[in-house]
Amino acid sequence: MQIEQPGFAPGPRRIVIVGGVAGGMSAAARARRLDEQAEIVVLEQSDYVSFANCGLPYHLSGEIKDRDALLLNTPESLGAALALDVRTGSRVTAIDRAAQTVSVTTADGTYTLTYDALLLSPGAVAVRPPIDGLDHPAVHSLRTIPDLDALDEHVTRLGRDRARAVVVGAGFIGLEAVEALVARGLEVDVVELADHVLPPLDAELAPLLADELRAHDVGLYAGVSARAITPGTDSAVDVALSDGTTLSADLVLVNVGVRPATRLALDAGLEVGPTGAVRVDADQRTSDPHIWAVGDAVEVIHAVTGAVGPVPLAGPANRQGRRAADSMLGRRTTPRAPVLGTAIVRVFGLTAAVTGANQRTLARAGIPHEVVRIHPGHHAGYFPGAEQIHLVASFAPDGRLLGAQAVGRAGVDKRIDVLATALRADMTADDLAELELAYAPPYGSAKDPVNMLGFVAQNALDGTTPQWHPTDLDDVLADTLVLDVRTTAEFDRGHVKGAMHIPHTELRARLAEVRAAAAGRPVSVHCGSGVRSHIATRVLLADGLDARNLSGGWLTLTAVRPDLVA
Amino acid sequence: MQIEQPGFAPGPRRIVIVGGVAGGMSAAARARRLDEQAEIVVLEQSDYVSFANCGLPYHLSGEIKDRDALLLNTPESLGAALALDVRTGSRVTAIDRAAQTVSVTTADGTYTLTYDALLLSPGAVAVRPPIDGLDHPAVHSLRTIPDLDALDEHVTRLGRDRARAVVVGAGFIGLEAVEALVARGLEVDVVELADHVLPPLDAELAPLLADELRAHDVGLYAGVSARAITPGTDSAVDVALSDGTTLSADLVLVNVGVRPATRLALDAGLEVGPTGAVRVDADQRTSDPHIWAVGDAVEVIHAVTGAVGPVPLAGPANRQGRRAADSMLGRRTTPRAPVLGTAIVRVFGLTAAVTGANQRTLARAGIPHEVVRIHPGHHAGYFPGAEQIHLVASFAPDGRLLGAQAVGRAGVDKRIDVLATALRADMTADDLAELELAYAPPYGSAKDPVNMLGFVAQNALDGTTPQWHPTDLDDVLADTLVLDVRTTAEFDRGHVKGAMHIPHTELRARLAEVRAAAAGRPVSVHCGSGVRSHIATRVLLADGLDARNLSGGWLTLTAVRPDLVA
Repeated sequence: MQIEQPGFAPGPRRIVIVGGVAGGMSAAARARRLDEQAEIVVLEQSDYVSFANCGLPYHLSGEIKDRDALLLNTPESLGAALALDVRTGSRVTAIDRAAQTVSVTTADGTYTLTYDALLLSPGAVAVRPPIDGLDHPAVHSLRTIPDLDALDEHVTRLGRDRARAVVVGAGFIGLEAVEALVARGLEVDVVELADHVLPPLDAELAPLLADELRAHDVGLYAGVSARAITPGTDSAVDVALSDGTTLSADLVLVNVGVRPATRLALDAGLEVGPTGAVRVDADQRTSDPHIWAVGDAVEVIHAVTGAVGPVPLAGPANRQGRRAADSMLGRRTTPRAPVLGTAIVRVFGLTAAVTGANQRTLARAGIPHEVVRIHPGHHAGYFPGAEQIHLVASFAPDGRLLGAQAVGRAGVDKRIDVLATALRADMTADDLAELELAYAPPYGSAKDPVNMLGFVAQNALDGTTPQWHPTDLDDVLADTLVLDVRTTAEFDRGHVKGAMHIPHTELRARLAEVRAAAAGRPVSVHCGSGVRSHIATRVLLADGLDARNLSGGWLTLTAVRPDLVA
Repeated sequence: MQIEQPGFAPGPRRIVIVGGVAGGMSAAARARRLDEQAEIVVLEQSDYVSFANCGLPYHLSGEIKDRDALLLNTPESLGAALALDVRTGSRVTAIDRAAQTVSVTTADGTYTLTYDALLLSPGAVAVRPPIDGLDHPAVHSLRTIPDLDALDEHVTRLGRDRARAVVVGAGFIGLEAVEALVARGLEVDVVELADHVLPPLDAELAPLLADELRAHDVGLYAGVSARAITPGTDSAVDVALSDGTTLSADLVLVNVGVRPATRLALDAGLEVGPTGAVRVDADQRTSDPHIWAVGDAVEVIHAVTGAVGPVPLAGPANRQGRRAADSMLGRRTTPRAPVLGTAIVRVFGLTAAVTGANQRTLARAGIPHEVVRIHPGHHAGYFPGAEQIHLVASFAPDGRLLGAQAVGRAGVDKRIDVLATALRADMTADDLAELELAYAPPYGSAKDPVNMLGFVAQNALDGTTPQWHPTDLDDVLADTLVLDVRTTAEFDRGHVKGAMHIPHTELRARLAEVRAAAAGRPVSVHCGSGVRSHIATRVLLADGLDARNLSGGWLTLTAVRPDLVA
């Protein structure tokens, strides 16, 4: 590793940073650690810098008791530790690239500030959905400290009795807000335009979240939009949905996503891509050599699809800030890794997490892939307290991991972090099979769920055990024999209509029955989760039958096709 | 991926597997799934197959209530599901390689069994340390179900009142046994020949475990050996230690490690390496083309050092079994990955975990490395319940990760699994810095501890912030100015004698004082964990001083040099 790169003039200089959260503040701190002489000015339009954006729902819920805990640093603490000149209430209204100046508006007036290097970290702005009545005082958002204060004050004013909230948008922050409002004693309905909650999650995993929401008395309206908010009785409002439903609410929280805040960049003539995000190079530099940009407002490259667009995640923003500081001070920058979109959310007792490309993205991008699904315990089954993890992963035909998703009550974050690391390393099913993860009974299994994903993918990809998928069910019913190899007790609790039933332990003795029933058709085997039917499929294949195993078993099938449950 | 490899004769064949736990049973199950026609005979000398070896301490403690939970499968269940011919109480006494037969001894006599393919999974045997009196009935081991039954019966017989146990050997299983015996109400002393508990752990992390043991009233005798066990008063024994101490005990548990069980292989003339483990190729095949071997008895290659020897871990054993089955049935085998030695143990409320090479191993192997140490919270600090993780990692001069270790109350397993995955992928400090791990406040931080390791290693390796290390203290005191930049309150609670104290927020204003005190000497900066002193070191370097930052800060320094604590 080398330290300095040539070509940057030494001597006094001024670095101006627009936006004092996440990426902007990471850049400011790194810049100071690299350059003790530079003047570093951070201009933040709000009254708060370096606040814990991701913590807002958890103060609303009361889990983070002290509001000040969200304020990680203040202008004073940043001045003392890092000699930063942090100016809140300072909005940058224009950039003069030729003069290398920004125009700053404060409560006291307007001034111009020159820069040697400018970093834009403007973040994102909330998307304003086409709903009539969004200006009603009962309608809130949850992006900033003032948003939080207003919402918190409103909830406190309502008290706990019979107050109702409608949350519009069931993405990551929307779901955190739902949980927070329930914790505050409100009756909550959530409305999601997509056909399931947490749209980045594969549809087959979403029912687990829906069940968890319903178990906490949350009303769920998916596949519909909010159309209008109108005054109701007392101080309440009526929220009219696209399906004709009207929900009464004492407060409405709208959280339908964000878009890059790029007005400043556009006005300055910086290059902006078709997704509306600022174009940057591998060093975070914009089309102007004196201007860098980071965070929710800039383009990133998706690791799996190669798609270019913004990604509103704190982790990448922080690392971009560090890279931008290295670049503007002429240092070797850490090679930029494409973005995986790793994200996680707690929904009451469940955790849902994703990394890489989901099935819908792969299908839309036309990327060939095989999906594998397992439902293992989060640690050894013989150790008390093992919680089931529902784990889905997609692999390219050559075995390369493309994406993974998981939902469960424990151990979800660990597996997704391991898989995110594996994705970064371009690992294959073979590599996952050989990962050597920490095993003792309280923590995992000798064959960790991640190893199991590798094993199952190897078997599916090399033809050892061909798969069928829950979405194939109609074709499977039309053209094949469905063979259920679960126990009689399991079969009696619910099964596919018309399925043949032979417990897997009896299969070898009853092959003639299967052969007769199949009558030349393929045999579509399933069990509860895919383990016993894997053995059964191998038995049938060895007998010369055209057999395949249901990926994910009855557990996934009934999530995808709830109409099947008797 | 391709399925079949040429050169293996189809048709009926018999696979004989010696040893019915972990690797042996993984091989048997995989072989059946691949070949429905083969006769598969599993010969197990004990009365139990497929039992949860790693679960024994947790049934002893009572945490796993049902003893049957440890018996994952029975000969009957394996016969029904996988058509395996499992024979317990069947000891293989000899292999005739020319005739391709094994001699089997049972309670009913002896017979000979032919094989087409033979798999040896004999496991390891407990090392019998040179202690007089090991045959006393109060002395136990904990490797098998009968061991567990005897120990459990003994503990039950003792009752809870004032019973005392001595555990000899504070490795992974020894520490689990200590916890179990404490849970059963015994007063426990633990004796470890190495100079600290859990010898694979770096010495600097061991004091955390020692403190946790003492907090549970466990007596700790490290750096000493047990010499003799002699009858004491009543049914108790006296355990004489090498330092002259005598410990009274109602029971003694000896667990000082294992060695490969290779008598059978040696007698058969199979190649055995200098460490006493059976030599195998990348397909687990021994020097005889019809014999494969897996598990604790075989050689593996260490991923970091390239050292060859046995590793008694369940995960590798299971994967080796699967590979051996693929190989003996002519399948493409999963490419063998070298072993990282990933391991984990719960010690009361703490978790300790390791992967890759530790500092002692790197030093002995003469592998140049830089050690970095951090003490972050396991999730965002502003979210309640953040527990400190003590994380140590070593990097090659080119930035490649070589090993990592962690101790803490939460989130340890996740970070070590991520780092084990990173090790497998030959990742560097740059790669760790760019890992995109799942972040929401209950799970991690926008800059995860693993990212932080990468940042700190980058700064240390590229010279941005040179480090000094706790073990350098004597030289540092002799030749440099020690500058403590913590707060006055922290300084007053304990500090290095002779250290200069300037809080980091005052440093820029007091540089002249530092310059005067240094008088041309280097300045060795430290704070509590290394964060504030990183900033301070950069300030001093910018001022032209020769400054460096204490890796791990006061937290690691006082663990390594407890004599410093006032």
